[in-house]
Amino acid sequence: MSEKWLVEVIGGGLIGTSIALKIANHGGKVRIKDANPGHQRVANGLIGEALLASDVGASLVVVAVPVDISPLVIAEALISNPSATVIDTGSIKTKVLLEVEKFLAAHSARSALSRFLPTHPMAGREIAGPEGARSDLFEGRAWAITPHPGLDSATLATGQLLVRELGATSYLISPEEHDRQVAMTSHLPQLLASALAGVLEEPLDLAGAGLRDMTRLASSDPAMWQPIFEANQSELISLLTKINESINKLINQNFNQDAVLSFMTQGAKGAARVPGKHGGVPRNYGTLSVVIPDAPGALARLFNHCAAAKINIEDLRIEHSPGQETGLISLSVKPSDLSTLNDYLSIQGWHSTVVTKGN
Amino acid sequence: MSEKWLVEVIGGGLIGTSIALKIANHGGKVRIKDANPGHQRVANGLIGEALLASDVGASLVVVAVPVDISPLVIAEALISNPSATVIDTGSIKTKVLLEVEKFLAAHSARSALSRFLPTHPMAGREIAGPEGARSDLFEGRAWAITPHPGLDSATLATGQLLVRELGATSYLISPEEHDRQVAMTSHLPQLLASALAGVLEEPLDLAGAGLRDMTRLASSDPAMWQPIFEANQSELISLLTKINESINKLINQNFNQDAVLSFMTQGAKGAARVPGKHGGVPRNYGTLSVVIPDAPGALARLFNHCAAAKINIEDLRIEHSPGQETGLISLSVKPSDLSTLNDYLSIQGWHSTVVTKGN
Repeated sequence: MSEKWLVEVIGGGLIGTSIALKIANHGGKVRIKDANPGHQRVANGLIGEALLASDVGASLVVVAVPVDISPLVIAEALISNPSATVIDTGSIKTKVLLEVEKFLAAHSARSALSRFLPTHPMAGREIAGPEGARSDLFEGRAWAITPHPGLDSATLATGQLLVRELGATSYLISPEEHDRQVAMTSHLPQLLASALAGVLEEPLDLAGAGLRDMTRLASSDPAMWQPIFEANQSELISLLTKINESINKLINQNFNQDAVLSFMTQGAKGAARVPGKHGGVPRNYGTLSVVIPDAPGALARLFNHCAAAKINIEDLRIEHSPGQETGLISLSVKPSDLSTLNDYLSIQGWHSTVVTKGN
Repeated sequence: MSEKWLVEVIGGGLIGTSIALKIANHGGKVRIKDANPGHQRVANGLIGEALLASDVGASLVVVAVPVDISPLVIAEALISNPSATVIDTGSIKTKVLLEVEKFLAAHSARSALSRFLPTHPMAGREIAGPEGARSDLFEGRAWAITPHPGLDSATLATGQLLVRELGATSYLISPEEHDRQVAMTSHLPQLLASALAGVLEEPLDLAGAGLRDMTRLASSDPAMWQPIFEANQSELISLLTKINESINKLINQNFNQDAVLSFMTQGAKGAARVPGKHGGVPRNYGTLSVVIPDAPGALARLFNHCAAAKINIEDLRIEHSPGQETGLISLSVKPSDLSTLNDYLSIQGWHSTVVTKGN
């Protein structure tokens, strides 16, 4: 690290505490502030000797609280730390920025906006609270940074340095484009997963991998999502209206050939727009389905054979069948590797089937 | 095999040809009939010496054609093979059964229904056509069998024997319950995946694993799905109406706390009903997130370490981040194995993070 970090983290949940831990591990000084005394205790315990003394000013304040209260917290941090950089980590950018501006204007401190950098780490949020915090939570993750017209370039540089320090990669995008993108890529899928799961009634014995994929998000925390949905509702309503229209069209045409063809063709085009591995251009991999016994070591044997065949596995998933003691694993590889791997695995005694050839 | 199979398969697509191949591999005799001369040639070539001569009657006829034409084909097979068992493999059961009955009644052959067993293999259908056929396509899969009141017990026994022969497991269920279940577990997820993917517009750089899971089905073949949606539209419309109501309620209440809490709680309950591994009682696994370099052999090293720790991986998935040369793999294990595996992998030098603890 080129210089010593002096950081105050407001909000000792998973994100805030994970950031603090990494700063502490890298020799920085950090303090966490959390309204919940239990979280505060856990967070202080985790920080230990790296604690930034209460009488030392922070040069960087990280606000990691829910988006319904973050604007006020950000504005207060900018006002009470008159030379510090302030970044937030919330899932919504435009509305938060707008409200921060309003708070600052009401305190005749509009110029402080130059020290505020809105950001959003694309990191797992499946568990909340400081107990789940880990210094490497952001390792290998993208971290959206949304510059605004009033931003100072030094503030941006500090934010980018922090992101690199945390092992993540900066991704610069406007607040408006961020909110439009996450509405499509995150908020809408979350809503549809909950909506689909909400109509499920037992028994569901014929459920397969498709249903599990489509409902996995439905176990997420409502307390985290509610302020996000509320803040991004105009984007969401416009998307939900489009979806509703496309489904009504299907129903009104009795799911006839033309209606389904047009509906599914539109869907296939959209699916092809979803970035593949590493966010690059979507790639169409070939897929093998391999039968695996349900025993420790079976996956190790399989991947040893893949490695021996010198073939890189680009993606994989497990499928399970009701009432069966074996499972199926899908391996995605470059189309040019497909038959090599299939032949090699067959020779090694695996039941391996080409499912899709890719292109 | 206890006796020699003499099988006629009508419809030389992926399912029909895969069934024929397995019969042929196990010493049975089989012929495929397909209206498409290209399919017919490929299928004949694959069967080779096991071809059932055209002047020998089949004791079993398997109908593997799209569900919009299958009722007529099934009825004709029952009439023209007066002592054979006839099974179908379509994704819809009630409407097909009803129409078969009608056709038979119109030919004063209603009693032939006793020789018809409606079935539905839960096997991958990502590619169509005989080129993708494999004799082990059904290995480890569930195969729904939907007995009806007019069914003869010998017909049922033959169907169950065939399913076992093909390496799958019979799952007995009424036609009505089958159609209700697949509407929820298969047809509705397919529709929602297409609807979601249909509103996506580039750029989608912030897309993560959630969006990929939620849109994977959207690349499926419209020609296969259209007759299924059309035949099961009453179930689908009732589910889509429920979904529409739940989303409208959210919108009308401006995504307020009560509205989102009730909507997502309902979703979480539904998600908990989705069967887990092997179709058993849903289990809540603990999940580790592990950073993996993008290189051949990395997965093999990881799974060797999991095997060395003597821990069974219950489920896994790869997550990718935009612009990154590393990936993250999620490993699901029994909650009691979680900290053992996490500690072991950390000692071996992996960046491993507990994401969910399970229970």
